[in-house]
Amino acid sequence: MIPTATTATSARERMLLAKDAARQIGLLSDERKRDALLGIAGALETAAAAIVSANDEDLRRGRANGLSDGLLDRLRLDDVRVAALAAAVRDVAALPDPVGRVLDERVLPSGVRLQKVSVPFGVVGSIYEARPNVTVDIAALALRSGNAVVLRGGTAAERSNAALVAVMRDGLAAQGIDPEAIQTVDDFGREGAHELMNARGIVDVLVPRGSAQLIETVVTESSVPVIETGAGVVHIVLDESAPLEWARDIVVNAKVQRPSVCNAVETVLVVGEASRLVGPVVEALQDAGVTVHGDAAVAALAPGIVPATEADWETEYMSLDLAMHAVADLDEALEHIRRYSTHHTESIITADDANAERFLAEVDSAVVMANASTRFTDGGEFGFGAEVGISTQKLHARGPMGLAELTSTKWLARGSGQVRA
Amino acid sequence: MIPTATTATSARERMLLAKDAARQIGLLSDERKRDALLGIAGALETAAAAIVSANDEDLRRGRANGLSDGLLDRLRLDDVRVAALAAAVRDVAALPDPVGRVLDERVLPSGVRLQKVSVPFGVVGSIYEARPNVTVDIAALALRSGNAVVLRGGTAAERSNAALVAVMRDGLAAQGIDPEAIQTVDDFGREGAHELMNARGIVDVLVPRGSAQLIETVVTESSVPVIETGAGVVHIVLDESAPLEWARDIVVNAKVQRPSVCNAVETVLVVGEASRLVGPVVEALQDAGVTVHGDAAVAALAPGIVPATEADWETEYMSLDLAMHAVADLDEALEHIRRYSTHHTESIITADDANAERFLAEVDSAVVMANASTRFTDGGEFGFGAEVGISTQKLHARGPMGLAELTSTKWLARGSGQVRA
Repeated sequence: MIPTATTATSARERMLLAKDAARQIGLLSDERKRDALLGIAGALETAAAAIVSANDEDLRRGRANGLSDGLLDRLRLDDVRVAALAAAVRDVAALPDPVGRVLDERVLPSGVRLQKVSVPFGVVGSIYEARPNVTVDIAALALRSGNAVVLRGGTAAERSNAALVAVMRDGLAAQGIDPEAIQTVDDFGREGAHELMNARGIVDVLVPRGSAQLIETVVTESSVPVIETGAGVVHIVLDESAPLEWARDIVVNAKVQRPSVCNAVETVLVVGEASRLVGPVVEALQDAGVTVHGDAAVAALAPGIVPATEADWETEYMSLDLAMHAVADLDEALEHIRRYSTHHTESIITADDANAERFLAEVDSAVVMANASTRFTDGGEFGFGAEVGISTQKLHARGPMGLAELTSTKWLARGSGQVRA
Repeated sequence: MIPTATTATSARERMLLAKDAARQIGLLSDERKRDALLGIAGALETAAAAIVSANDEDLRRGRANGLSDGLLDRLRLDDVRVAALAAAVRDVAALPDPVGRVLDERVLPSGVRLQKVSVPFGVVGSIYEARPNVTVDIAALALRSGNAVVLRGGTAAERSNAALVAVMRDGLAAQGIDPEAIQTVDDFGREGAHELMNARGIVDVLVPRGSAQLIETVVTESSVPVIETGAGVVHIVLDESAPLEWARDIVVNAKVQRPSVCNAVETVLVVGEASRLVGPVVEALQDAGVTVHGDAAVAALAPGIVPATEADWETEYMSLDLAMHAVADLDEALEHIRRYSTHHTESIITADDANAERFLAEVDSAVVMANASTRFTDGGEFGFGAEVGISTQKLHARGPMGLAELTSTKWLARGSGQVRA
């Protein structure tokens, strides 16, 4: 099953092979990059049994090590899930090529013609948790944007990832494309992760995916530039003028539709007279199974409120829990957001255009909304066709990241002998 | 002279003041940001005598400490140079506002209207060497793009920088703008630099300016995202088809016009039959005072060649020295560039369009040229009107950085009650 396995015997050697392969991958035409992904999709389907069997070993070990049902479910691959992985790779294959876009064009006074074009980064690294689907997902996105990829997944998924990487490498090789473009450093343990985080000059960018703690570790320990994809302590502000229907529908949707994701709302701030909305909004939330944690002012307005402490304002529940806090005015709401937001997404519900525009201008988050559900912060919803992650930092990419965010740029200058005066 | 001096007693406290001021600066109109810079320019002119006197103290100390004439010259401020600083600030004031540009716009199927707009980073940090002009330059660029700034200059310029910062803060205050938007951590020594490099969550981006060693330190020690502005081991390839006149003019211009800067050529690669060019190109270089360091093949083709070693291929001379290396073919030239380039600028001189396009496609540098002098890699030459630095890394900015590169983006979403289905 692993005829195209690398012979490299260190993490560093593997990364150098990826860097070398990146030259070929970076120059592939749109069509050949599609071929690469279709090759991978086909190989995944063909090798489904072997992948599921490798995954069984991880699951057995996970059970023996007492992994929770939730973690075991995230780890599990079966025929249906492998088929879904292959389908997702085909979806990425169908996206437009993000490489070679002309982003700026100018002719210098001397006649030199300048173009700023999008180019692949080169080698994209990713460090993530025990979710084998991320292995395939990141590899497909990296290759589609012309990059080689170095993967480091969670130890609990080591067998699954090894099988997936081997199969994807086979898929590339069958298309006549250098399989060294996909590398894993999983088998080098912590040392492999350390080398990946410090492979400056070999790996061009590192995208961690997972818990806040994992991301913090990667940001702190890496000398390779990191794109932070962060946690979401997401706020909705109910302005005094907020229409009840919008407030209720949006808060319930933002909390209940999928509570375990980063764009779900965690804290609702109730401004002054918007206290009139607390009763019906809390009732709708409770009807949907949500536990509302509130301060004393909120508790006085609705039954069944669990008393909130400072810790609630900082918490990304990722569950059917929601914090609710009464504030005197929009200033206090903005101050609360500055203090507790993770700069992912915030939304204001208001009928007052001036307040909406003030909120949009002043809130310093990747996505700032007026009168829409925070659940819209998503690469798919934004029309990107794929999502690398949601960046909560400000360098290079902010908010949902599509394929374009896995490219850099370079300037091309075409002259006819010009020198600088 | 320092009525608006901060009362903050730690580097961290100063940075928090900058972060707080960034909220005001970030929301200023184009006109008010211009006012801020014009205020600073006027204050610099008014306080020229005090600035020059502070600089005198640095110069006295520098001489006592045995600083070289070159370093003393970089450190020196006189009335003419202070006037030039003020003029440069006015030039930056006249540039278009980089904030508030709509970079993407889309309407989601649900009717939510999305806009991706340019916004200030917030707080820009800079660590640089003992060049007081950088203090003013970075502050002006940061403020013009709506950012607050935290400065850490070289110790040898400490008095000059303190005076410049105080004067610039006065200039802001006189315009009714929060002077806390300009901070220095110079007076906290190494600890101040350390705190600045690790002020993640307070400082949004750090731009080091100076030697390769300074930049390496900042990249390695910072948890704040860094935009690397790098050294230039810049190459020119003389292709077999290179016209003599272009080869000679461009190589001489790229080396001689200003040898001490990062876009000056350091190594010329001579491909196969382009050996015919070595004699006249070396003669022209030597006539201009350049010492040519060459391998044996080059030495056989021209007189007065200093034998080159491996170390020459790695060296950014920044002087009237140039390395010349004969290679068999374009492949070998590309291989040499991959190995020794700092990914700043490379140029090919050729009459062969296919070779030019291959070079443009395959060389992985910030600026790749055909038939033009590498000296064109410059924010001013590119028409940006100002230059923050030349990024040799791939994240966020690559090549000459203008004001736009000191902005991030955010997504604004305007809805009317939409929820996700």
